[in-house]
Amino acid sequence: MLEKRKPIQVAEAVEKVMRYKQSGAVEFVSIKESHGRYLGKDLTATSDVPHFNRSPYDGFAVRSIDTKEASLQNEVVFEVVDHIGAGYVSSKKIGPMQAVRIMTGAKIPDSCDCVVMLEVARSFEDGDQSYMSIKRSFNAGDNVSFQGEDAKKGEVLVEKGTKINPGIQAILATFGYAEVPVAKGPVIGLFATGTELLEVEEELEDGKIRNSNSTMLIAQIERVGADVKYYGKLPDEFDTCYEAIATAIDDVDILITTGGVSVGDFDYLPAIYEKLQAEVLFNKVAMRPGSVTTVAQINGKLLFGLSGNPSACYVGFELFARPIIRYMLGCRSPHLRKETAILQQDFPKANPFTRFVRADVYVTNGSLMVRPSGVDKSNIVMSLARANAFMALPGGTRGYGVGDIVDVFMLEDFVGSNWPW
Amino acid sequence: MLEKRKPIQVAEAVEKVMRYKQSGAVEFVSIKESHGRYLGKDLTATSDVPHFNRSPYDGFAVRSIDTKEASLQNEVVFEVVDHIGAGYVSSKKIGPMQAVRIMTGAKIPDSCDCVVMLEVARSFEDGDQSYMSIKRSFNAGDNVSFQGEDAKKGEVLVEKGTKINPGIQAILATFGYAEVPVAKGPVIGLFATGTELLEVEEELEDGKIRNSNSTMLIAQIERVGADVKYYGKLPDEFDTCYEAIATAIDDVDILITTGGVSVGDFDYLPAIYEKLQAEVLFNKVAMRPGSVTTVAQINGKLLFGLSGNPSACYVGFELFARPIIRYMLGCRSPHLRKETAILQQDFPKANPFTRFVRADVYVTNGSLMVRPSGVDKSNIVMSLARANAFMALPGGTRGYGVGDIVDVFMLEDFVGSNWPW
Repeated sequence: MLEKRKPIQVAEAVEKVMRYKQSGAVEFVSIKESHGRYLGKDLTATSDVPHFNRSPYDGFAVRSIDTKEASLQNEVVFEVVDHIGAGYVSSKKIGPMQAVRIMTGAKIPDSCDCVVMLEVARSFEDGDQSYMSIKRSFNAGDNVSFQGEDAKKGEVLVEKGTKINPGIQAILATFGYAEVPVAKGPVIGLFATGTELLEVEEELEDGKIRNSNSTMLIAQIERVGADVKYYGKLPDEFDTCYEAIATAIDDVDILITTGGVSVGDFDYLPAIYEKLQAEVLFNKVAMRPGSVTTVAQINGKLLFGLSGNPSACYVGFELFARPIIRYMLGCRSPHLRKETAILQQDFPKANPFTRFVRADVYVTNGSLMVRPSGVDKSNIVMSLARANAFMALPGGTRGYGVGDIVDVFMLEDFVGSNWPW
Repeated sequence: MLEKRKPIQVAEAVEKVMRYKQSGAVEFVSIKESHGRYLGKDLTATSDVPHFNRSPYDGFAVRSIDTKEASLQNEVVFEVVDHIGAGYVSSKKIGPMQAVRIMTGAKIPDSCDCVVMLEVARSFEDGDQSYMSIKRSFNAGDNVSFQGEDAKKGEVLVEKGTKINPGIQAILATFGYAEVPVAKGPVIGLFATGTELLEVEEELEDGKIRNSNSTMLIAQIERVGADVKYYGKLPDEFDTCYEAIATAIDDVDILITTGGVSVGDFDYLPAIYEKLQAEVLFNKVAMRPGSVTTVAQINGKLLFGLSGNPSACYVGFELFARPIIRYMLGCRSPHLRKETAILQQDFPKANPFTRFVRADVYVTNGSLMVRPSGVDKSNIVMSLARANAFMALPGGTRGYGVGDIVDVFMLEDFVGSNWPW
């Protein structure tokens, strides 16, 4: 007798998984290793920026009061008493009609309150003494980058959960974060099941295929920001699979298997979940591909039973495993980023189920366009190469055509969407 | 006397740099290490996929000729002579009115030419013998995934220069690429110059700031796909800088320095280029920030003199260094990806130069929107944190307003644009 499974909707399945969300841990890594990680805490300014009144130009620091009489008709001369570059501080006390030649980035002497740009001053020497003259007046604060004008000490600059990009690296360095608090990547255990699986380096044999799901999932897990503990492949044998899975559960935060979740004669995952006394949250989702995607939990730990079919495996991971992993990494919008795009290719096939078609989203004249990234048969891995999104085509229609507006879910993304989609 | 420099347009500057483009080398890495690298060669299919006629469903493999009499009125019975799962090959020769129970992914026996899905067959036993019966006929090829239908041996599946994503990882595994040809990242040497620079772990001092450009550039170089050789920071002293730079040139493919390229009293890079007998391609670009960006070449090796100002440094790298590095990685469209977006914030400031404003591009109702990612002063690193693009605002206007269509250049991108933009 064929087992009859009751399919649930994609959104309901996502919600069932997200009930088991947990905050992840935070660890410290050196700033050099923090690029690409997720901020474990809000990033706050540890000082004002600038932390002293700084010259934004090459020029002369003076007291504005001494410039008041300067005009086109009245050239006013200053004695240049010091000459400093960025990184130096003048030790001179600047008096009336005195100036410090100062370079971009240098600290403006406390006794000065404005900077005359090099271009508007005339420099000259008389013997060993340098002078400069101007023909216009300046106000206090002219050409001064004031302490704290860019950032105030204590200000939150970047929120926890943000992926660290080069700009954030610059901020971390500016504020002295030699050690950076980052989200500790949850450890995702991974098994591929299937007697048909060969290792990548093995020669093909009749009836067997190379294990591509493990390599693909390792990259998907890395892309989402978690760590992988790969346990290898398992044959379709109940005892072998049960022992391996039961042993691995304790060592990981989430366990993913591929294959063995359908209703075939050698699909042992359902029986393994039963023997583990795991609660199956769902074992059929109203979608293609990936309808057999199964998720179970045991003491709050999630077991993802993804399809052995590469495309179904890929989709199942991104829809259901990605958001809970991103949540553990502290992301405030952990779900796949949802946008709309204009379909650029007819998709005539009717389907009772919602299809998640591997798709290529691109921009033309400022608008998102989408087309399938290959032939959409669920066993075709080739279409995954060019996929940077799924397009969701709800079931119950007679197909879709060029110009239709469809939902797309972005894969190469670190921004995400909030729930509900 | 202030040196007068002649600014050139951004596009002209990019072209001058790209004249020195060179093909990069290819190296082999294990498939585990290839995720995120750039394909060094076109990826070709090393076998057909599937490489045998495969069952796409759980069911029974039979000879279609034996089903021809089956109908609702005429149930036809088959003797089930074997039972195989994926990975197994039946050793039986299938004769008339015989069937092999077969699971998804298993090889269809050579003597069969179609598969009866489990759902449309009735299975029953008689003593030790299994039988199945059907009430409809099948044609040769029904429910068969034919050898080579997904990919043909020798077919080019993914082009050289493509960034390796999880889907490509799956393809590499499928075709047995245990060792993957990838572009060897060019080695980018990096110095930060400036007496004002402190290390990240040092306490702030009056007049000094922490070196944020190095950390930022290391991340930018990594993001673009190259390797960094970081030499540390240098004080604004001619001899020290000259010796360090002259020594480093031979060890790297491209040398980047930050700071020291303007016309300040302690900006020694122009004199260093002269002493090195390097040809300066340009030393002023008609843009903000980054107008002092300087590029020189010596024996065909490029020296990038980026501004010491963080934002100008950031922009200079992305506009001028990124495309030549991406070219060396084999990318066919190495330039910053250019799109158009709708401005969502007034930008009233007039400017004679084209501005490259750090910007946040996002999507609303399927259209790209853009806003500045922070206050646009070139010394404000904070705006870099949220920047995923630049918006280019050509000079010579009285400013820009909400609803204007502007060019944007995407930073978190691996697709790129061709030239000319």
